[in-house]
Amino acid sequence: MASIEVLFLSKEDVDRVDLGLQEVMDAVEVGLRAHGEKDVVMPPKAHLALDYPEKIFNILPGYAGPIDACGVKVLGDFHGNYAHGVPSEISTLILMRTDTGAPYAIINSTAITWMRTGAVSAVGAKYLACRRPRVLANIGARGSSWYNVAMLDALFDFEEIRITSRRAESRRRFGEAMSERLGKAVRVEDNAADTVRDADIIIDASRLMEHEVLVPDAALRPGALLQPYGSVMSVDPTLPFRADKFIVDDWNQCAKAGYGQFAPLINAGELRREHLHAEIGEVVAGRKPGREREDERIVFWHKGYAISDIMVGHLVYEKARAQGIGTLLPYYEEPRDE
Amino acid sequence: MASIEVLFLSKEDVDRVDLGLQEVMDAVEVGLRAHGEKDVVMPPKAHLALDYPEKIFNILPGYAGPIDACGVKVLGDFHGNYAHGVPSEISTLILMRTDTGAPYAIINSTAITWMRTGAVSAVGAKYLACRRPRVLANIGARGSSWYNVAMLDALFDFEEIRITSRRAESRRRFGEAMSERLGKAVRVEDNAADTVRDADIIIDASRLMEHEVLVPDAALRPGALLQPYGSVMSVDPTLPFRADKFIVDDWNQCAKAGYGQFAPLINAGELRREHLHAEIGEVVAGRKPGREREDERIVFWHKGYAISDIMVGHLVYEKARAQGIGTLLPYYEEPRDE
Repeated sequence: MASIEVLFLSKEDVDRVDLGLQEVMDAVEVGLRAHGEKDVVMPPKAHLALDYPEKIFNILPGYAGPIDACGVKVLGDFHGNYAHGVPSEISTLILMRTDTGAPYAIINSTAITWMRTGAVSAVGAKYLACRRPRVLANIGARGSSWYNVAMLDALFDFEEIRITSRRAESRRRFGEAMSERLGKAVRVEDNAADTVRDADIIIDASRLMEHEVLVPDAALRPGALLQPYGSVMSVDPTLPFRADKFIVDDWNQCAKAGYGQFAPLINAGELRREHLHAEIGEVVAGRKPGREREDERIVFWHKGYAISDIMVGHLVYEKARAQGIGTLLPYYEEPRDE
Repeated sequence: MASIEVLFLSKEDVDRVDLGLQEVMDAVEVGLRAHGEKDVVMPPKAHLALDYPEKIFNILPGYAGPIDACGVKVLGDFHGNYAHGVPSEISTLILMRTDTGAPYAIINSTAITWMRTGAVSAVGAKYLACRRPRVLANIGARGSSWYNVAMLDALFDFEEIRITSRRAESRRRFGEAMSERLGKAVRVEDNAADTVRDADIIIDASRLMEHEVLVPDAALRPGALLQPYGSVMSVDPTLPFRADKFIVDDWNQCAKAGYGQFAPLINAGELRREHLHAEIGEVVAGRKPGREREDERIVFWHKGYAISDIMVGHLVYEKARAQGIGTLLPYYEEPRDE
């Protein structure tokens, strides 16, 4: 066989790729639909915990049928990284061919993770939000929150956007930058209660150390959509049972992970598959209904899965190749049958 | 924080690193001992199966205390790769820092996998073989078999070495090359029975499609050490129960993997923890005895684990840095707290 090469893309290479919000949402939607149509292989993500929840790695393997590609993302989630001046989540995605298993791309997927997470929030809302959501609330000012707000606003053009996060400096910075980006006011609140109250769409990307109710059941007005995806529970434990519909991205992964927003309820045996209305892919694929009434209160928990990373990573790879971005590296110059 | 860089090493870069057999065995032994002393974190390896057993990926995460480093190896095991002229096992190892989770090295670990597997065979035999093993038998002519034979012979200087493998061309090529390397005769057999009969140390790295007895219980003479690590069962199902000692590398991983040499017996509930004498790390750490009598028949099943990859990968990284080998890549030029 000829020499095997891989395309390496740094964080800045990915930034340089001319990538539109809509095409990222489209790629993620194709992945969600494939998941609903069982055109994927995806074992649950694995975890390597040095010090839970402050220092863990998440490892996300998968195969995405629509592009016939495999991938594994290795993501470090280190809460104290702000003290080092680096993002809490730094990750690398390896994409592999399905004929030989050889890699074809190795990508700093830090920004891809933010994008694909925002895109899942947005595509989820496309299927699950009320008809004309006017108010968006977002808890968190990390990378994915940027795409949550930007992509959701691209879909819905909100009348009001409220955000909050733990650290005053980062929420202020986020609010200013997003306001400039969107050309509209972004309200920065110093607490969760004022942020989420009676919003139409609530995205909760908080990162707590231990359970704390940031979004009480009472904050959800009829018709609200709540997407809580922090790694530690931030809602009332009654939420999945009181909501009209409880939707996840991949139940198998949610049930086996041991970590994540609703893990305590799952680990205790209280939250079970029977409480689930659907996986989001089933809704996108048209196999199960999404929102059926304007007054439903819907909870969509996305832990995040490999298929979204692979879909967006492959899109970035293709565009980088076409645009001449990145470093093409010899990976195996003279492979032979050994 | 300053720019984050990663060292990329291709297969040929790794070949260029001046690496001795003994230092690889030493690094692996440190890793095994750390495992025995619980100075590691190691969830079971994960699998992504496109078409079992012919096309699978193994994903091996871990933390190795002695070098304070994390790593994830992504290994494709594609049986039909010889038709593409590439090795069946192609893999990539990412090594990560424990302060921020950022990667510091991305390595084509194809050869590292061969080396560390051979080193586990050799270090295992150092603790488990009879006092003066004279005859080595090796089934398989893949990459790891090269290191099995070279490292074991470095330890024991055998009087007789026999090898076999499925394809005539590859076993002939292997026999000739190894004979030249060692400066002694290497007997190439066309069947397993003649290869393994009454050998002191038997390494079975076969890769079957379905269960077939290559090493019958009767082939094991008193005092023999058998290390079967193929992905499909190649021994009598009675073996773990009839052997005097049954040893594995990591029981948790063996029990949960669902794949591998003894997986059918574990999945059926027949082979259980109570049948285990020890994990090899406990033997290396001196917490449990290895061989206690010259006539014991010992079986050591190593599925292979992340700690060995991380130990050898980090050694390769350090030597490559010192020798100026590899490509230092910008991974994240201007990280900031996001």
